[in-house]
Amino acid sequence: MSDQLPKKSNFSEWYTEIHKVAKILDVRYPVKGFYAWHPFGYEMRNLVYNKLKELHVERGHREAQFPLLIPRKSLKKESEHVASFEEEVFWVERAGKNKLEEPLALRPTSETAMYPLFSEWIRSHTDLPLKVFQVVNTYRYETKHTRPLIREREISNFKEAHTVHEDMEEAEKQVGEAIEIYSEFFDDLTVPYTITKRPKWDKFPGSEYTIAFDTLMPDGKMLQIGTVHNLGRNFSETFDITFENEEGGHDHPTQTCFGISARSIASMIGIHGDDSGLVLPPKYAPVQIVIVPIIFSDSNTSEILETCSELKKNLEDEGLRVKLDDEDERPGKKFHKWEIKGVPVRIEVGPRDLEKDSATLVRRHNGEKDQVPLENIFTSVETLFDDISKNMRDNALKNLNEMVKFSTSLSDAKNMIEKGHAVEFYWCMEEKCGRQIEESLSADVLGERLDVDGEENIKKECIKCSSEAEKLALTARTY
Amino acid sequence: MSDQLPKKSNFSEWYTEIHKVAKILDVRYPVKGFYAWHPFGYEMRNLVYNKLKELHVERGHREAQFPLLIPRKSLKKESEHVASFEEEVFWVERAGKNKLEEPLALRPTSETAMYPLFSEWIRSHTDLPLKVFQVVNTYRYETKHTRPLIREREISNFKEAHTVHEDMEEAEKQVGEAIEIYSEFFDDLTVPYTITKRPKWDKFPGSEYTIAFDTLMPDGKMLQIGTVHNLGRNFSETFDITFENEEGGHDHPTQTCFGISARSIASMIGIHGDDSGLVLPPKYAPVQIVIVPIIFSDSNTSEILETCSELKKNLEDEGLRVKLDDEDERPGKKFHKWEIKGVPVRIEVGPRDLEKDSATLVRRHNGEKDQVPLENIFTSVETLFDDISKNMRDNALKNLNEMVKFSTSLSDAKNMIEKGHAVEFYWCMEEKCGRQIEESLSADVLGERLDVDGEENIKKECIKCSSEAEKLALTARTY
Repeated sequence: MSDQLPKKSNFSEWYTEIHKVAKILDVRYPVKGFYAWHPFGYEMRNLVYNKLKELHVERGHREAQFPLLIPRKSLKKESEHVASFEEEVFWVERAGKNKLEEPLALRPTSETAMYPLFSEWIRSHTDLPLKVFQVVNTYRYETKHTRPLIREREISNFKEAHTVHEDMEEAEKQVGEAIEIYSEFFDDLTVPYTITKRPKWDKFPGSEYTIAFDTLMPDGKMLQIGTVHNLGRNFSETFDITFENEEGGHDHPTQTCFGISARSIASMIGIHGDDSGLVLPPKYAPVQIVIVPIIFSDSNTSEILETCSELKKNLEDEGLRVKLDDEDERPGKKFHKWEIKGVPVRIEVGPRDLEKDSATLVRRHNGEKDQVPLENIFTSVETLFDDISKNMRDNALKNLNEMVKFSTSLSDAKNMIEKGHAVEFYWCMEEKCGRQIEESLSADVLGERLDVDGEENIKKECIKCSSEAEKLALTARTY
Repeated sequence: MSDQLPKKSNFSEWYTEIHKVAKILDVRYPVKGFYAWHPFGYEMRNLVYNKLKELHVERGHREAQFPLLIPRKSLKKESEHVASFEEEVFWVERAGKNKLEEPLALRPTSETAMYPLFSEWIRSHTDLPLKVFQVVNTYRYETKHTRPLIREREISNFKEAHTVHEDMEEAEKQVGEAIEIYSEFFDDLTVPYTITKRPKWDKFPGSEYTIAFDTLMPDGKMLQIGTVHNLGRNFSETFDITFENEEGGHDHPTQTCFGISARSIASMIGIHGDDSGLVLPPKYAPVQIVIVPIIFSDSNTSEILETCSELKKNLEDEGLRVKLDDEDERPGKKFHKWEIKGVPVRIEVGPRDLEKDSATLVRRHNGEKDQVPLENIFTSVETLFDDISKNMRDNALKNLNEMVKFSTSLSDAKNMIEKGHAVEFYWCMEEKCGRQIEESLSADVLGERLDVDGEENIKKECIKCSSEAEKLALTARTY
């Protein structure tokens, strides 16, 4: 078979092939930028999105769903907003033989589908805050190179949350809560991130400002994996959303929206995978444990198989997702097969394990082995799962921190960028300097870092113009 | 407010308005046949679809997801299939300013999106059976009157399962399993149904035969709520799906597909609702219990409120979905508000309840009341929930059975149909007779009943041609 995974050092090829060999997305669908989810991939997707939804619901957000097709009139209402993606909109203009009276856009994002109805839903301050979210596919005719889960024309599983508030203070609080949700989410996924406030020229069109989560992929490029937008009153004014305040007057409310797509899954795959395949944190692995009987010609086969079956049953009864691989194949071949799928823990039961009423636990992410008494196995696995997640998260964060270098000179910064680093620098926050920095580094300014303190004992001046600079900013090559 | 629910005897109006007053779907979205889900409606949707998915997964079906857009070439491959909905397809032919090389259809159903990939996924008999399903919205430019969840241009939450098998026997078995899944699903939803084999002229285009679940709505029209299709080898031949059999030869596999849409929710709403609003079975009610403190001017307010809070906490700890309505409103107004939402059980705690360490449980579906000791309340509620579901299911089934009349004469049958009945009759199974029966009754022949035995002590002859007839068939007005 041609299912050979390239080395991960060749990240771009590795990333495409991992989808094929691990059966995540099928890239053979005959429309560019549109992919089909394999069942295994979709199981992973469900685990990830159930967590994401849960984090919203427990904070009072409620799931809803709005239509796919948006009338041109609605789409065009907020001019700054639409201008940013107008060239990328898929249009439906015909049904059967009928030309439609008004062209309908496949949602590129749902503000213009939702907010006309928000103006119906909201009447009074007692209707606020309104906090809804939906998980839908969105559509953009990307002209850049497409890639599963990273750059798609059918943007898979976009979780978009939309909130409406009485005033700016409440909107600011909501931005904070969104950052909290996303931090908790990516921590749990074992995906490290930076949090930056995007430069003005890169904010969400129509918003007051945008805060973004990015992570560093193995090819040295930053991937935007989540954004939080404070919309102020821009959309509520355009879409005529008003509410009666406590004094009986009428105000336009403030709004926020914040989104995460299946790039979250792409980053988990890309950051942790290795030359042998996927490496998944236990919580998000469709198969958490594979049990492999180790049978020699002279071993007590039936006893081993019985122990394995019992083990499987016991672990499943505890709510774990377990496979017993009792096919007639060499153990090495089985190890390989389940390593591709990223199964976090392999349990081997062989004659020498049985002698000691034990089993051998092997960790996918670092290959470490432990022999564990059978009677303690569930407790051992539980602890091991926590260890693995923590270890994966710590390693990835350490790596991210090491890959971010501080620089005070553009030429040093350029070298660093070329070696696949992201670069921190002081910046005067002026657009002119920012644009020039981007140009001279062939990289993007991601904006002011919100998640770290500034450097100490360093003269804070703009890397470009040398004027006084308060803000530590981040730049990198990006997807 | 204008949120006044019409009497249910005026079903069509009631049905549209219930969406508004109970906040299920919002019909004000500015594209005909496209609706937005309110959070309350979507919570109901999640409860219903989680059950539906679970019934599939526990039988080895795996969730996947295939793209929305289908190239015209793929769509047109099976000519009988496409002919049936070609006039209803929404087309994307432009993105931004670019005319697409090939028009792309918004999926009207997903056979032609999935099966080209199935031909890649399936190589050997060891890949079979393949059992996948997805829950997606599908799109048809309906020319009939649109109605939320019943006839939509964006067909909401279509669960489509697709299976591939080695031979016809396995496909037949799969049809049986699908009928089992759907029966269990609708039983659990408390929605009664008939199961019929559709007449040849009404089968799924491209299939060998179609088996359908229908239910009778309060206006005397049958609503198709689920279909199961045996596709034989028609699609596997068209889409070139083959597998290597155990002998090393190559065969086309057999296929089935079966679908359920949000009509399942429409039927639950339509059949059980009443003049006061929704009536929901406890398992599918977003709010299962509302607690209403009954406070008089001289009552021990704080003690009552404390008891209510404690009750809420205890019931929530048991996993129930509970609201405590402690707003400053008259109890009657609260009752009304939660009746609209179909909350199955109301718990009232007033001074006289407290005296006896009791609470009063009121059933939404029939108004019956019980006074129950506080310490037994969870057990009482659990039993009550089972009773309510059983009672709702039994009543609805009894009603369906009463509404289906047997007839041996077309003129009697016509009278019955006009009174809102469905009619059972013997039929020679010839298309010619079938078509004439449809015409003379202004009703549809739903096909041979598979779920009941024939009538006894009756001469079995075709209601139309009087020739010998084996099959008891069903006819009714339909949606």
